[in-house]
Parts: sequence; C-alpha cells; structure tokens
Amino acid sequence: MIRFESDYTQGAYPQIIRKLSSINFEQNEGYGEDNFCRDAAQKIKQLCKSPTAAVHFFTGGTIANLTMISSLLRPHQGVIAASTSHINNHEAGAIEATGHKILAAPSLDGKIEAHQIAEIYRDYLADGPDHCVKPGMVYISQAAETGLVYSRKELEEISKACRRYNLPLYIDGARLGYALAAKGADLDLADIAGMSDAFCIGGTKLGALFGEALVIVRSALQRDFRNILKTRGAMLAKGWLLGAQFGVLFEDGLYFEGAKRAVDLAMKLKDAFAKKGFAFQYDSPTNQQFVILDEKAVNKLWKKYTFSIWRKLDAAMYVCRFCVSWATQESEVLELIKDVEDL
Amino acid sequence: MIRFESDYTQGAYPQIIRKLSSINFEQNEGYGEDNFCRDAAQKIKQLCKSPTAAVHFFTGGTIANLTMISSLLRPHQGVIAASTSHINNHEAGAIEATGHKILAAPSLDGKIEAHQIAEIYRDYLADGPDHCVKPGMVYISQAAETGLVYSRKELEEISKACRRYNLPLYIDGARLGYALAAKGADLDLADIAGMSDAFCIGGTKLGALFGEALVIVRSALQRDFRNILKTRGAMLAKGWLLGAQFGVLFEDGLYFEGAKRAVDLAMKLKDAFAKKGFAFQYDSPTNQQFVILDEKAVNKLWKKYTFSIWRKLDAAMYVCRFCVSWATQESEVLELIKDVEDL
Amino acid sequence: MIRFESDYTQGAYPQIIRKLSSINFEQNEGYGEDNFCRDAAQKIKQLCKSPTAAVHFFTGGTIANLTMISSLLRPHQGVIAASTSHINNHEAGAIEATGHKILAAPSLDGKIEAHQIAEIYRDYLADGPDHCVKPGMVYISQAAETGLVYSRKELEEISKACRRYNLPLYIDGARLGYALAAKGADLDLADIAGMSDAFCIGGTKLGALFGEALVIVRSALQRDFRNILKTRGAMLAKGWLLGAQFGVLFEDGLYFEGAKRAVDLAMKLKDAFAKKGFAFQYDSPTNQQFVILDEKAVNKLWKKYTFSIWRKLDAAMYVCRFCVSWATQESEVLELIKDVEDL
Amino acid sequence: MIRFESDYTQGAYPQIIRKLSSINFEQNEGYGEDNFCRDAAQKIKQLCKSPTAAVHFFTGGTIANLTMISSLLRPHQGVIAASTSHINNHEAGAIEATGHKILAAPSLDGKIEAHQIAEIYRDYLADGPDHCVKPGMVYISQAAETGLVYSRKELEEISKACRRYNLPLYIDGARLGYALAAKGADLDLADIAGMSDAFCIGGTKLGALFGEALVIVRSALQRDFRNILKTRGAMLAKGWLLGAQFGVLFEDGLYFEGAKRAVDLAMKLKDAFAKKGFAFQYDSPTNQQFVILDEKAVNKLWKKYTFSIWRKLDAAMYVCRFCVSWATQESEVLELIKDVEDL
Repeated sequence: MIRFESDYTQGAYPQIIRKLSSINFEQNEGYGEDNFCRDAAQKIKQLCKSPTAAVHFFTGGTIANLTMISSLLRPHQGVIAASTSHINNHEAGAIEATGHKILAAPSLDGKIEAHQIAEIYRDYLADGPDHCVKPGMVYISQAAETGLVYSRKELEEISKACRRYNLPLYIDGARLGYALAAKGADLDLADIAGMSDAFCIGGTKLGALFGEALVIVRSALQRDFRNILKTRGAMLAKGWLLGAQFGVLFEDGLYFEGAKRAVDLAMKLKDAFAKKGFAFQYDSPTNQQFVILDEKAVNKLWKKYTFSIWRKLDAAMYVCRFCVSWATQESEVLELIKDVEDL
Repeated sequence: MIRFESDYTQGAYPQIIRKLSSINFEQNEGYGEDNFCRDAAQKIKQLCKSPTAAVHFFTGGTIANLTMISSLLRPHQGVIAASTSHINNHEAGAIEATGHKILAAPSLDGKIEAHQIAEIYRDYLADGPDHCVKPGMVYISQAAETGLVYSRKELEEISKACRRYNLPLYIDGARLGYALAAKGADLDLADIAGMSDAFCIGGTKLGALFGEALVIVRSALQRDFRNILKTRGAMLAKGWLLGAQFGVLFEDGLYFEGAKRAVDLAMKLKDAFAKKGFAFQYDSPTNQQFVILDEKAVNKLWKKYTFSIWRKLDAAMYVCRFCVSWATQESEVLELIKDVEDL
Repeated sequence: MIRFESDYTQGAYPQIIRKLSSINFEQNEGYGEDNFCRDAAQKIKQLCKSPTAAVHFFTGGTIANLTMISSLLRPHQGVIAASTSHINNHEAGAIEATGHKILAAPSLDGKIEAHQIAEIYRDYLADGPDHCVKPGMVYISQAAETGLVYSRKELEEISKACRRYNLPLYIDGARLGYALAAKGADLDLADIAGMSDAFCIGGTKLGALFGEALVIVRSALQRDFRNILKTRGAMLAKGWLLGAQFGVLFEDGLYFEGAKRAVDLAMKLKDAFAKKGFAFQYDSPTNQQFVILDEKAVNKLWKKYTFSIWRKLDAAMYVCRFCVSWATQESEVLELIKDVEDL
Repeated sequence: MIRFESDYTQGAYPQIIRKLSSINFEQNEGYGEDNFCRDAAQKIKQLCKSPTAAVHFFTGGTIANLTMISSLLRPHQGVIAASTSHINNHEAGAIEATGHKILAAPSLDGKIEAHQIAEIYRDYLADGPDHCVKPGMVYISQAAETGLVYSRKELEEISKACRRYNLPLYIDGARLGYALAAKGADLDLADIAGMSDAFCIGGTKLGALFGEALVIVRSALQRDFRNILKTRGAMLAKGWLLGAQFGVLFEDGLYFEGAKRAVDLAMKLKDAFAKKGFAFQYDSPTNQQFVILDEKAVNKLWKKYTFSIWRKLDAAMYVCRFCVSWATQESEVLELIKDVEDL
C-alpha cells in the first residue's frame, strides 16, 4: 500500500535523523534552555524579521494551541474560530477544557472572513455584554484543514479587523510550510509575523519527527510563557530535541524546499484528477487534495493506496482526501496519476 | 565539564537511535494506533503480569500526571500527595490547572506513610465533608525526587490504605527503573502493577529520547482514555516514535540493565563521599545522591563537574545533588570519585 | 411604565414575604440542613412521586446549571444542547468555564428533537471518538427561552434517545411552572421526574424572591452533591431562606396556581395581538409572547410599557417579547390589550 | 437551646425585612442594574473614600472569593494565603476548581505576616520560576476565621509587601464589620480600601439575610467584571434584593452599630470565661471566642447552649467556639455568663 491518508505517516528528513544521532551523547541543559533551541529560535526570528519575537517549541499542535489560547484569555472570554476549524472539531474539547468557549463563525471551508469577526464582536456588544461570552482573540489556520489558504489580501483584512477590536490574532500553522508554498501564494514568514500576534510553524507534518515552533510576535503576550508551558505539561525535558530539529529545518531552506516539492507533486495529482473530470470539494492549492470520487473509483484505488474518506456526499459519491507530504516520492505520485488516468 | 546535574542531559540508547533510523521511512498509522505501540504495550503488560492493563504513551511526565489524575477525579475531589512531591512543587500548578487541589501530606523526604492517608481521609469526614476537599486518589513517586524508594512493606501498607478508603493509587514512575534497581530493592514491575491502580514507567530519564508509558491496571479506570489524552493535548501524532522506543527498552531487559548499571555506579560514588566523611541529606539507594558539602568542596568540584545545589543548609553547607544516569560512563564516575578522595 | 420586559422584575408572593418575616429570628442550622429545606424537599419529592430523589436549593439558574452539568461530565465529555439554548448563548460561557464543550444541536426555536441526539452521538462515533468531544449528557429547557414547550410525546422520545445512548437528561426548568401550565400541556412534575435524570424547578421567575430547586432523580447521580455544591460556591449559608420559600410555593398549590393565572393572562394578550393581525415569531403557549411589531407599533407601546426587543427582523419589523408573570395584574394586561386593539 | 454556634443562624435586621416587604411589588431592572444597587454602591464608595471603586454584590462569600480570585490570576499563577485560611480549608477546593493553586503560608492562627509574602515570592524566583507556581496575588481575612484581626501596622506591612512584588491584595471581609469594631481596632473602611486592591464586606454574618459587597478599589482590576460574575454563575437575577439590603445596612451606621454591640457582648463573655480561669486558643478581640473547656464544662453548657467544638486538644480538653452575632440578645449572653460563673 502507498499511503496518501495523511502527511504524518513517516519519520523525518534524513538530515534530522543524522543530527539527532550525532548529538546523542552531548550533554545539554534541559527544558529548552540549550544552544540548539537558542539557535533555532534565532533562525526563525530572522526569517520572521521579528527580532523581539519569542519562540517556544512544543511536541504537538493541540498542546501548542491550548497553551497559547488559554494564556491569552481571561475567564469570561472565548476564541473566535471557524465552525469547521480543527480546534472546534478535532481536538476533543481541548480548548474548552481550559475553560473557554469557541465562538464558532459559520464556515463551510475551514476559513473565516474579516467581516465575521466584526459581526461576532458587535453581536456581543448588542446582545448584552454581561451575559454573553466576550470575544478575546481570533484563531485561524494557514493552511486550513481543507487545504485552502488565506491570500495576502484576506489576511490583511482579518488582521485589520482583529486590531480594530483589540483581539490578538493567532495563526495555527500546523501546515504553514505548505501554505507558504501554495500555488499562487504571496506570503512569507515575515508577512505572517507582521500580520499576526502569535503563530505556530508546524514541524510534524513538514519533515520533523515531531514538533511545532510557536512564535509570539507581540511582546506583551510573551510574559511568563515558559511558566505557562510547564503548567500545561508542555515543557519537554530534553528540549534540545526540538531545537535541533528546527535548526535543521531552517538551515539552507530545507523546510521551504520540502514543502514546495510536495505542493508541486500535489498540483500534478490535482491536474490528473481534473483532467479525468473529477470535481473537488475544495479548490486546494496545497498538499492536500479533496477529490469527489464515486464508489467504483474509490474501491479501485483502495487496492493500492490509502487515503481518507473525508465525507460521504450521498449514496454514491465520496469526498476523498489525498495528502502528499515532504516524504512522498515522485514515483508514488506518478503511479497514482497513472491509475487515475486508467479509472 | 562532566554533567551530573540531572539524569536527562543526553539523548538515548544507541539501539533506540538505530531503531528510529531504520523505521524512518516506514509508513505508520498515526496517534499511537500502530504496531510499535501495540508491541511495546504487549511487552509491558507481560512484564506487569497484567494482561488486562491498558498502556498509553506520553511525551513527558507532567502531562502524563495531569491527564491521569484529572481523569480520576470528580470536581470536588483532590489528590493526596507528599507535601514535598513533584506535583506539589515542580509542575507549576499543572494539577490545580485541571481543577483539583493537592491534599499535601506533610513529608520531609518526598515519601508519605500509609497512616497519613487514613488520617487525611478521616479528617475529611470529621471536619465536615460538605466543606472540605474530598480525597479522591493517592499519588506517590517511586523513586521519590529525593532518590528514596518505598519498600515492599511500605507499598503494601499504602496500597491497603488506598483500597480501604476506595482511593485509586497512582504511582509516578519517572524514575521507576532506578527504583526497581535500587540497592536492597524487593519489587518488580508485576508487584508495582499488583499494588497500584495505575502507574507510569519513565523513559526520558532511563534511556529513551523522551517518553513515559502509563499503565492503567484497573479496567474501570481505562474507559475513554484515548479520548481524554486528546483533550489534554497529550496525543502524539507520530505515536509510533514512543512505541518503538519502549519496544527497544523492554527488549532483552535493556531498561533494567541500564538502570542497574547506573545505580551501581551511584553506590560507588556514595561510598566515596561517605568514606570521606560527608553526610547525606537523604539515604538514597538509587541513582541520585544528595551529599552535604561545604563551600570549599563545592567550589573545587564545580571546576570540573556540574551538579545541582538542592538546598542551602546554612551559610557554609549545601545539599548537592549528583545524578548518575543510564548514559553516565564508569570513567566519569571514577574520575569524580578520585576528586572526592582528594577533597 | 408597566413592565412586561421580563418575569423577574418584582419580589415574591406576599405569603413568602410573610413567611420570611415570621421566622426571621428563629435560629436554624446553616447550609441547607434545616427543617425548612427538609420539608420543602419532602413536598417536592411527593409531587414528583420520586421518594428517592435528592433535592438541592440554589440561589439562581446559571449556577444550578453549571454545578449539575459539570458534576455529570468527565473531562472529555460535552453536553448536547440546542444551539439557541440559554446555556449556549446567555450564560457567558459558564459551562465552558467548568471545562466542557456545549455540543450545539441546530435549533431555531430553542428546542431540540430526539433524532438530533442520536445523530450527534453517531457522528461522534463515526468521526473518530478519540479526536472529538464525547457527548456525556443532554440539556433541554422546559419551557424553552422562546416560550415553547416539549409535549409529552416529544419528551418521551428525547428521554428514550438519552437512555439508548446512556446520556443523562437534565431539564432546565427555570420556567417549569409556566410550561406545566401551558395551554394544552399534558405533563406534571411526576412526568418530568419520570422522564429525566435531573431537573430544576425555577422559583425566581415564579413567585419566589430567588431560588431554584434542583431535583436529582437518579440515585447514582446524587453522590457527594452537597460537597460539589460547595466547590462551585453554590451553598447558601442561610439555606433555610430557600427551603422556606419553596415550602410556601408548594403549599396548597400556590406555585401551580400562580403559573396558571399568568399563562391565562398571556393567552388573552396573545389573542389580542392575533386578532389585530400581528404575527408571532414563536407560537408560545406559555407566559412569554414573541410578537412581530412594526416600528410604529413599537414606539406607540413603548410610551406606556416596557418590553424587550428580542431581535430586529429587518429595517421595519421587530420581534418583541412580552412577559406576563405570577405578579402581573389582570388590569395591566387588560390595559395593554386595549392599547393593542387601538394600534 | 440558645445558639452560639455561628453568626449566621438567624435572618436579618427588622429594617431589612421591612424594606424588602415595602418594595416587594416595585418593578426593577434585573441583574443588579437597579437604583438600590446603585445607591448602596454609592454609600459604600463614600464610606471607603474611593469614588472610583466598583462595587458588586454576591449572594455568598465562597462565590465572591472564587470569582474575584480567578479574575485576577493567569493560568500559571496562584494565590498566597494562610495555611489555616478559609479558602484553603473550608471552601471545598473552590479556588482550585477555577484552576489555581493556593500557595499556603504556614499559619497557626489564620493570619499571615508580611515577611511570608516576601519569602514565598523569593522562593519562587530562587526555586526556578519556570517550574513553580507564580504568586499572583495575596488573600487575607479580616477578621480571620480565628477571630483575630490585623492591626493597622500589620496591614500596612502586608500592603507594602504586596505592592513591592506587584501582587494585588484581596481582603475577605466576611466578618469585616466585627473586625472594624474589634476591641482596640484602629481601622475604618477607608483604611481597608486604601491598603487593599479589592475586598468584600460581609452582610450574611452581619445582619443581612444574605449577601456580600465586593469592592474593587483598583480601576485596572474592574474591567469586564459583570461579565465575569455571570460566567461564574454569580449574578443574581433580582439583584436589587442585595442592593436594598446593603442600602439599609449602610444607612445611619446600622452595620457598624450592630457589629459593635456584638463585639461588646463578646468581650463581656470573654471576661467571664477569663475570670473563671479558662484559657483561650486565640486571643480574639471580635465576636468569636475560642475558649478551652474541659469535658465537664462542655457537657454542662451543652444542656442549654449550642456552640461548636473547634478542635479536640487532648482526651480531656476542647477548643470551643462561641459566636455572638448582630442578633444575639444581651439577655442571652448574660444568661450564659451566669452559667459560666457557676461552672
């Protein structure tokens, strides 16, 4: 079986494995206070053109999200997010478990629009601020779980709405690399840093064994963050494992190259499905493709490939998710393309 | 500098690095539903002689503790633990952040005694059960942060007290390997499983890159635990990284051998300090030694070695912690011993 | 101004004021362990035909809801409720602040349907129970905030769905009296008790100065509840104030008579609006009426009456809420009716 | 039986009952936005000489404490309080249930000393601020549960320590009236306001049916507080019931007079015990007296009086708490004094 079911089915770039091997018996300070973390943070801050940003490393995305979000909110506040966002659907109530409501903005495709932020905030004021959950921040994903990305213009509008209502903007970048490499993308890390208050850069789905780098851009939000990390159980004893990995990812552009390679392969696959006349649930310019297949096609492809059934549309049609990743071989995609052409 | 400051300053057993390298491009199910996790769980259950136990893997100890503890308690309940325990002092309020009080049993050495459990429970009943925090479980560490261990007899008494008051017993085994290998130790994994309701087996401080295996022995406490893991942000996307490591640790007794080797070296070091007339804060039979040194000795040793100042006793005397680990070289200990003899 | 804006703008039945006056200097046990609470609980249990129920008194509805709901759920569980329910909109995130998500069932009128419970539960199982919030209970309001009530048949179906999926059913009865007195109502307290696991009987909106009686029908859910009350800050020091009030309310049917009187007046008012050709947002058979008025009518009525603008439908039309209460005078309603006829 | 077991066994001043009766059918705005609340707040602010303070009314002390404390703390912070304080012992974990640890300062008598604040803060910094709970505020009770009060000098020192470490000081004044009326007291409401950041004025134990007035002195801590109140379930629908009561209490000095009367009676009772040779557990200058009695004396007095056994000292001796309250009759105290003289 060739696996296209997710972008986290394999380990890490060989360079990362080699790095971890080579430093295995070096002795390091614990809890992320080592040189590897410092160096990786430095590289990230340079790429973000944010010398005053703070960078913290997490083992995974859910714990990064819940730690960041709960640190920004007071007890009566909630986080505005797409109704179809990851935190609202697939993190098992992790945000609510820290005491905060997700204020769901209706969304079919995982994205929200700037005017929704304004509307939710104004509804709060209109509906009686004493009795409703006060919007305290905004969460978006770049790319969204649907593979879609925010354009520069969309992000600028969201950022502007957030600043107007004094709502910190946090961008979940579990697949940020793929978003930056998207077809037609017009944003880089410095843009993301410039338009948000905090964001994370996913490693797990982009060539690290595991790990997300959280960048807190705004100084006022950085206070005591290591302490808060510990309170949430998010501080890795051997923090250098994360620092060393991100050091490799951001050495010589590996992170960006790998993402671009995956997106290019995904576009070839997308073209193949399109040429064959298949429709797409979302017009994704990134590594995840959501093709609408009939049962026959599904069954045929399932003989050689794994992919996920995202949703059943009706008795006969399925939305199927195919993920290309940093580790996907060109040959694997070409083989799938050939089989798509034969459907 | 030779580092004795903690037992988590280095990576992992070379076997583990090799294992992770060799499976790097294998494609696996995510979230711990892979064969490596299954196999490691199987090995652990066999060693525990607990075929019906559930085994879950975590990236670290604090998040394992907070996930397990909060899953056992109702809103009004607290966890009985030593006043000097890790969760009460060095986890930044992680337990309280899930909504529960730590009912601190006075303890100078990190351990509690069975009668304290009975007393706290009876005080609860006597003081007015409506207005006080109801004891809902008991937490102990084996070994304690002080290096001390519970003997079979002590553990039996604690276990008996817990069962009498219907309090689940959870054992934090971040250093369980060293405890089982302690000088004079009379317990094995099956004993631990037999006397507790849940416990964790630390990997981070015992030769894994990172990871703790949580064993939930009692079936009634296993329900929905994967779901709860996710809610706390504790589910690693590439769960097989944990399973593969624990698979190596419990293949051919590596976990136990490495722990024994470290404890043997620690005993040599302890003897050297003792022969030279130094006293100990705790009479530790495990890999951590807490020696009382004067300022001159501290300064002399600090030229070549790192170790932690655990506490300042008075103007001139310091409790110093020396940790030997699975990675410590015999030559390093011998060199330190020589320098101790020359103090 | 004659106030129809809510059903909690005035104090209490004179009988209650007299009762509190007459016992003012009696000395009582604190914290609800007095004879007044015992007697009121006894009366309620008899009316509910639930001799094994537990009855607890609260000062208000939100704290009753959050205490009951959080006591029923484990950390990964959420509560199914109408998207338009009170807890999802007008309790300022009180439920989430205890750590739990509200699983919102789409609803335009404040009510849910039995099939939605089944769907949400099945979606949870289908979508991946590890990564989603597990439904742990169901919350409904009788009457809903929209004035609508569940019929016997609807409630039976909901109750059946809950039992099928092992979900405790909790009924928020802040306006239970009005629901039981609704035009065409076919339920009594014993029915409510028989079909739910817990429910509350509102006093605040039905003639008490303040207070809600929480009835926990199912024994397994009663454990340690007084202790949990205290943890949430919900235990009134002079608990007898609540017991004495509910004792009066359920003496000689005062609670039911007052509710019936209010509903009868509300029906007269409803008829007056209907005859005049006004439409209703919800076809409410209880004390709250949601009439759609144009701006001119609003402005005219606002000169003599207070009522709430529930929602602006479009530039010219408003949904207006008129509440009749236990304290409303017939003359006040007749005066309003006359002015409606003159619109 | 004459009850001395607590100071909340009876209703309210007749003036309060009359007030509630007289306004029973007046129509008021809900949720504390009525004129009674405004007027009572105004009176309190004048007495506090704090025109910019915010005043909120609660139904009870525990919910006032948990709402205020949780609104002041970020997730990693805890509250410094006496180990023997009410929140640490008799509120069933209400503070921890909001996610925060109580940093217990060792105390035998319910009070803390200024140097303990400094020590706890410095220990936090020294012990590793990433891994420990950060002190985020200080809680004290005036009077303490032991009846003891802080003198002006002590309070000034505590206030100074709090400001030095930037820790808001919150004073639980459930028995503030008795403290201000204590023998030798040298503080008034304006002093309390001047030295604290927030404090509450207890009504329940001082002549109200129920209710505590929370005064938030520092403007920066007032933000969104009504919203937070609602999130905790602390907003009373008929808020004017609280405002009206506090309006009466602070009309013409009733609050202070009643407290003084009770303290004077308590001092007479104290003298009687002292003259008879009985010792006291705490040298209380307020309405609660903690006398050490032998079993014979206990049994004799128990025939006519209720009082609480605070603690059993040894086989034969008991610490007994006698509470005089605003409602205690002089004749009741004189009768008890006579029986004490006959012991």
